[in-house]
Amino acid sequence: MARGGPAQPTDQARSVYRPLSPGEVKITGGLWATRAERNRAAAIPSGLKQLGEAKNLFNLELAAGRTSGQPVGPIFADSDVYKWLEAAAWEYGRKADERLLADIDGVVELIAAAQEEDGYLNSMVPTRDGGRYVDLPQHHEFYCYGHLIQAAVATARTTDRRQLLEVAMKIADHLVATFGEDKRHDVDGHPVIEMALVELYRETGTAAYLELARYFVEARGRGLIEGYGFQPAYFSDRVPVREQTTVEGHAVRAVYLGAGATDVAAELDDQELLAALEAQFAAMVDEKEYLTGGLGSRWEGEAFGDPYELPPDRAYAETCAAIGGIQWAWRLLLATGKSSYADQIERMLYNGFLAGVSLPGTEYFYVNPLQHRDHALADTQRSVQNGRLGWFDCACCPPNVMRTFASLEGYIASTDAGGVQIHQYVPGLIDSGDLRLRVETDYPWHGRIKIIIEQASATATKISFRIPAWAEDATVDGAVVEAGGYATVERTWQADDQLVLELPLRPRLTAPDPRVDAVRGCLAIERGPLVYALEKTDQPGGVAPDDLAITADAGFAEREQSDLLDGIVVVTAQGKVIDRATEQPGSRPHPRPAPATRDTELVAIPYYAWCNRGPQAMRVWIPTA
Amino acid sequence: MARGGPAQPTDQARSVYRPLSPGEVKITGGLWATRAERNRAAAIPSGLKQLGEAKNLFNLELAAGRTSGQPVGPIFADSDVYKWLEAAAWEYGRKADERLLADIDGVVELIAAAQEEDGYLNSMVPTRDGGRYVDLPQHHEFYCYGHLIQAAVATARTTDRRQLLEVAMKIADHLVATFGEDKRHDVDGHPVIEMALVELYRETGTAAYLELARYFVEARGRGLIEGYGFQPAYFSDRVPVREQTTVEGHAVRAVYLGAGATDVAAELDDQELLAALEAQFAAMVDEKEYLTGGLGSRWEGEAFGDPYELPPDRAYAETCAAIGGIQWAWRLLLATGKSSYADQIERMLYNGFLAGVSLPGTEYFYVNPLQHRDHALADTQRSVQNGRLGWFDCACCPPNVMRTFASLEGYIASTDAGGVQIHQYVPGLIDSGDLRLRVETDYPWHGRIKIIIEQASATATKISFRIPAWAEDATVDGAVVEAGGYATVERTWQADDQLVLELPLRPRLTAPDPRVDAVRGCLAIERGPLVYALEKTDQPGGVAPDDLAITADAGFAEREQSDLLDGIVVVTAQGKVIDRATEQPGSRPHPRPAPATRDTELVAIPYYAWCNRGPQAMRVWIPTA
Repeated sequence: MARGGPAQPTDQARSVYRPLSPGEVKITGGLWATRAERNRAAAIPSGLKQLGEAKNLFNLELAAGRTSGQPVGPIFADSDVYKWLEAAAWEYGRKADERLLADIDGVVELIAAAQEEDGYLNSMVPTRDGGRYVDLPQHHEFYCYGHLIQAAVATARTTDRRQLLEVAMKIADHLVATFGEDKRHDVDGHPVIEMALVELYRETGTAAYLELARYFVEARGRGLIEGYGFQPAYFSDRVPVREQTTVEGHAVRAVYLGAGATDVAAELDDQELLAALEAQFAAMVDEKEYLTGGLGSRWEGEAFGDPYELPPDRAYAETCAAIGGIQWAWRLLLATGKSSYADQIERMLYNGFLAGVSLPGTEYFYVNPLQHRDHALADTQRSVQNGRLGWFDCACCPPNVMRTFASLEGYIASTDAGGVQIHQYVPGLIDSGDLRLRVETDYPWHGRIKIIIEQASATATKISFRIPAWAEDATVDGAVVEAGGYATVERTWQADDQLVLELPLRPRLTAPDPRVDAVRGCLAIERGPLVYALEKTDQPGGVAPDDLAITADAGFAEREQSDLLDGIVVVTAQGKVIDRATEQPGSRPHPRPAPATRDTELVAIPYYAWCNRGPQAMRVWIPTA
Repeated sequence: MARGGPAQPTDQARSVYRPLSPGEVKITGGLWATRAERNRAAAIPSGLKQLGEAKNLFNLELAAGRTSGQPVGPIFADSDVYKWLEAAAWEYGRKADERLLADIDGVVELIAAAQEEDGYLNSMVPTRDGGRYVDLPQHHEFYCYGHLIQAAVATARTTDRRQLLEVAMKIADHLVATFGEDKRHDVDGHPVIEMALVELYRETGTAAYLELARYFVEARGRGLIEGYGFQPAYFSDRVPVREQTTVEGHAVRAVYLGAGATDVAAELDDQELLAALEAQFAAMVDEKEYLTGGLGSRWEGEAFGDPYELPPDRAYAETCAAIGGIQWAWRLLLATGKSSYADQIERMLYNGFLAGVSLPGTEYFYVNPLQHRDHALADTQRSVQNGRLGWFDCACCPPNVMRTFASLEGYIASTDAGGVQIHQYVPGLIDSGDLRLRVETDYPWHGRIKIIIEQASATATKISFRIPAWAEDATVDGAVVEAGGYATVERTWQADDQLVLELPLRPRLTAPDPRVDAVRGCLAIERGPLVYALEKTDQPGGVAPDDLAITADAGFAEREQSDLLDGIVVVTAQGKVIDRATEQPGSRPHPRPAPATRDTELVAIPYYAWCNRGPQAMRVWIPTA
C-alpha cells in the first residue's frame, strides 16, 4: 500500500486537511474505475512502447553510453519518460504487478546509468544544445529534473525500490550545491522543480530541498529571464510570485508554479504567500478559466490570454494545463480547507481533463476547444480535426494523463483531527484509520450517494460531504444542506450505519460572464459536474451545431443511454435550426433581417465524450434563439 | 514619369480595365498625400537605416565577399532589402531625388555583387542553412527572388537604371533553367515569385517567365510540400489552385498566391482559373475577412481560420496581408471590371492597411486586432500593447508599407477603350491621355467629389465613378445613382466642364454576419470607407471600451476635429456604461441578473488612427445595450 500520495504535507505544514494515501482510498466502480483500468491495461503499456518508438529511451541509452548516435526529439524529451515512470509507479501502488515493476526497474536502471558523476542528468542538452545550464529559460533541464523527482517520490511511496530516489537526491544535492541565493542565481523557464523539491523534502526530510524550492519560487519575477523571444510574462517571470494578482503567460508553467509555490507556502506556513496564491487562483477562475476548467486561451505561447479573452473555438486549454490546475487546486484545498477548490477539481477532472483522452484511453487531445466548426481544417498536428492521437511530436500530455489516472485516489478524500472529508464522489472505499466507509453511487449520472460505515472507532467522528456550488436543494438524509461548502455529520458511528447524500442532477442552463466577448448571447448546458456539448452526429437531420440555437426558456429532457459512449445521460432541449440560405453572408447594415428558423431538438452529450465518433462539429456555448 | 505601375497587363491579357501609370495619376492633397509625403521624407530613409542596423545589408556584403562573419537574422532577411528598394524606386518615380537614386544605386550594386555566377542569389541559405534549394518550403529563396524581381521592375519603370533588372533576369533565367515541368519539380513555401515573374515577363517580353509563373501556380496543391511541421493547408498547398474554393493557411502566402495566379490567368486569358480565383476571393470576403479588411484570424501560423472564425481581440490581420489583399483585389478589378474589388481595396486601404502605420509614418503594427482590452499584457514583440514599433525581428511589414504608399497612385484610376474609371477618391490629377481631370475633394471626411476637366479630346468619352456598396443615395450632378457599381457619364468633354459626385457620408451601424460567433450581439460604427473604433482616452470619464455598450436605435452626431489625430471626423453615439461592480464574475446560472448601467456618450475615431496616443483599450465591435 502506498505511503503517501502525490502531495503529502509534513506534520509541520499548514494543512487544514491531510491527504489520504492512494492506498487508503479505492475506486471500485463507475466511470473513473473503468477509465483507470484502461489506463492500467492499455495506456501505460502503450506509453512505454511510444517512448521507445519516439526515441526518448534511445536518448537515455546514448547518455548512458550504451549506444551511439545523436539524440532526437524536443529538448524536454526526458521528461516524458519520467512522467511515464511516475504513472507506472502510482499504478503499481494501485495494483502490484511484477511485469510492470520489471518495466519500471529497467527504465530506472537506464536513467541511473545516464546520470553524470556530479548528479547532472540530461540526455540532450550537453551533447546537442551547447552544454549544461547554458540556456535555462529554454532548455528545460530543471523541468526534466522535476518530473524525475516526482517519479522518484512515487516509486518510493509505492514500491520497495530506492534507486530512482537515490538518483533524485543526487540531482537535488547537485542543484543545492549549484543554485541559490549565494550561488548561481537562476531559474528554469518551465516550473515544476518547485513542487518536486518540496515533495522530495517531504519524503527525505532534507531541509535544503525545501529551501531551494523556496528560492526558486522567490527568484521568479525578478528579471532573471530576459530576451528569449517571449516576454517575461510568458515565463511567469514578470512579477514576483507574492506580488502577482493573476495568472499569465504559458498556462502549464503558470499553474505548475502556482502548485509548487503553494507547497512552499504550506510547508513554511507563509500566509502572505498563500493569500497571494489564493488571489491568483481566484482571478484565474473568474477571468481566465473556461467553463470546462480548461486553462489557456491562446495557441501563441500556449498561454493565458488577457482577462475575459476566452474564445471557445481557439481555446488552447491544453490537457496538461487542466492537470496542473487540479494539482494546484488540491494543494490549496489541503492548505485552506475551502470547498471551492474541490469544486474546481471536479470541474477540471470531469471536463477539461477527461476530454483530453479517448474512451479507450490510448489517444489524446493536446488542445481542448469548446467549439469545433463544421468543415474545419487541420493545419497542425495538434488540431482537433485530426482526432485524438496516440502520441505527439511534443508528447507532454499523454504521460501526464497516465499519471493522473494512476493517482486519482489521491484526490478523493482527506482527514483532519475531527474526521474525514469526502471531496469527490466515486463508488469505493475510504479508510481514514478511525473510520472505514463504503461509498455507493452512480455519480455523475445519478445524484444519490450512499455512505455505509464498515468500521468505526468508538469516539464521535465527523463525516463531511462537499456540496458543490451548483447543487441547489442537496439533502443529507433528507435534510436540505447549503450548496457550496461542506455538510458535516458528527456521530459515534457503528458498523452498517448509513448516510444518504442527494445531489440533484438536473440539467441547467449556464450564462457566461458578460465580459467574455467571445460567447456573448450564448448559453451552455450543464448537469451536475458535467458540461454538455452538441455534437453534429447526434442532431436530428445531422444539422451542424453551427446552425443551431437554443430556446432560453425551454425545458429539458434527459435519457440514459447505456449503449452510447460507454454509457451516458443524454440531455435534450428545445432549439431552432437557422436556415442559412435565407441569410446574406458578411457584415450588413443594421438591422439585418432575421433568418428563417424551424424548431428542433438539441441533443447534448457530456463534453468529455466528444470526438469519440470521428472529428466533427461540436459546441458547448449555444447561441440563444 | 513612370512607365507602368505595380501591375501592368500586356495588350494580350484579359484586362477589362488598363491601369494608369503612377505618373499619370498625382495625389495632390488630403490624407493620402500627407501620409505618402511622410513615407517619402521619414519612412524610406529610416528604412535604409534599419536595414543597416538589423544587418540585412551586412548579410549581402558577406555574400558579396566584401566583409567576413556569419549572416544574422531571419532566413528571408534579403527580402526586406528588396521591398525597401521597390519602395524607393516607386518613390523616385513620384519625385525624382538624386540622393534617393544614389541610395538605390548603392544597394543595387551590393546586390549585383552578391549574385552568384549562375544567377543564384541569397545571403543566408548557402552559408548558414545547408545549401541552395535544400528546403524550399522553409528557406524562402524564391520569395526573396520575387521581391527582388518586383523591385527590379519598379526601378526599370521609374529610373533609367537597368542593373537590377539584369540581376532579376539572371535569376529568372536560372530559375527557368532549373525548375519546371520537365526539370526539378518543386515550389517555394512562400508565394510571391508568381506575381514577380509575370511582371518581369510584362517588362521584358520573355515568355519563359510567364510560363514558369504558370508552372508554379499549377504545381501547388499537388503534394510537393510535405512534412514541414505545418500541414499543407498552411502553405496553400492542400488543393490545386484551380480547384480551391476558399483561402486557407498563412494569410500573406494565400493572398500573394491569389494575386500571382490572377496575373497568370489574365495573361493567358484562362477563364476557368480566373473564375476559381474570383470564387476564392468572394469566400474570403464573406467568411474570413474582418470588417477592417484585415485578413488572417490566427496567430498560430499567421493564418486564416475556419469560416466565420473572426475573433476581434486575437485577430492577427497582419499588415502585410492587407497589402497582399489590395494587390489581389486590384488584379481582379483589372481583369473583371467589377466595382466590388475596388470597394475591397478601399476597405483594406483605409482600415486594415492604414492602421498598420503610425501617423508619423515610421512605426508599424505587425498585427491589427479589432479589440484591445484594458490592462492587456504584451507577451511577444508583436503585441499591440507594445505600441507600433520602428522595426521587428521579422521586419516584413515596414518595407511593405513603404512600397504601398510609394505606389498608391497605381490603384486610383484606370482606362478602357471608352474612357476613364475612377476607383478611389483623392484630390489630384488623372491623365488618361484622352482626358485630363482634376479631382477636388475632402474625402473621406466629406462626400463631395468635384471633377474638373482640364483637357479633353474631341470625341465622346466616358467618365465612370465607383459608387461604393455602402453609398446609398449617392448622386452625380444631383441625379441619384445606384450603390455598388459604376456610374458613368459619357460626353464630349470641354475644358472646365465639371461633374459633382456626392457620396453621403453618414455614420452608420453595421451588423456582423450572425455566423461570426466572436462578435455576436455587437454592432460597429462606420462612416463612408472608414471603420470607427472606441478608444479609451476619448470616452467620458476615461471608461474603458470593455465596459461600454451601444444603444442600437440611437442617433449619431459627428464633429470635425482638425486638431485631433491629423484631423478627423469624430462620431458620437448614445451608449451605456456597465457598472461591473454590480455584476458577479464568472459563469452563473441562467438568467444572470442584469448589471446596473448609466447613460453615456460613445466617442468613436477612425480605426486607422488608434494607438497614436499610447497603447490603450480599443474596440470596433460594440456590444448592444
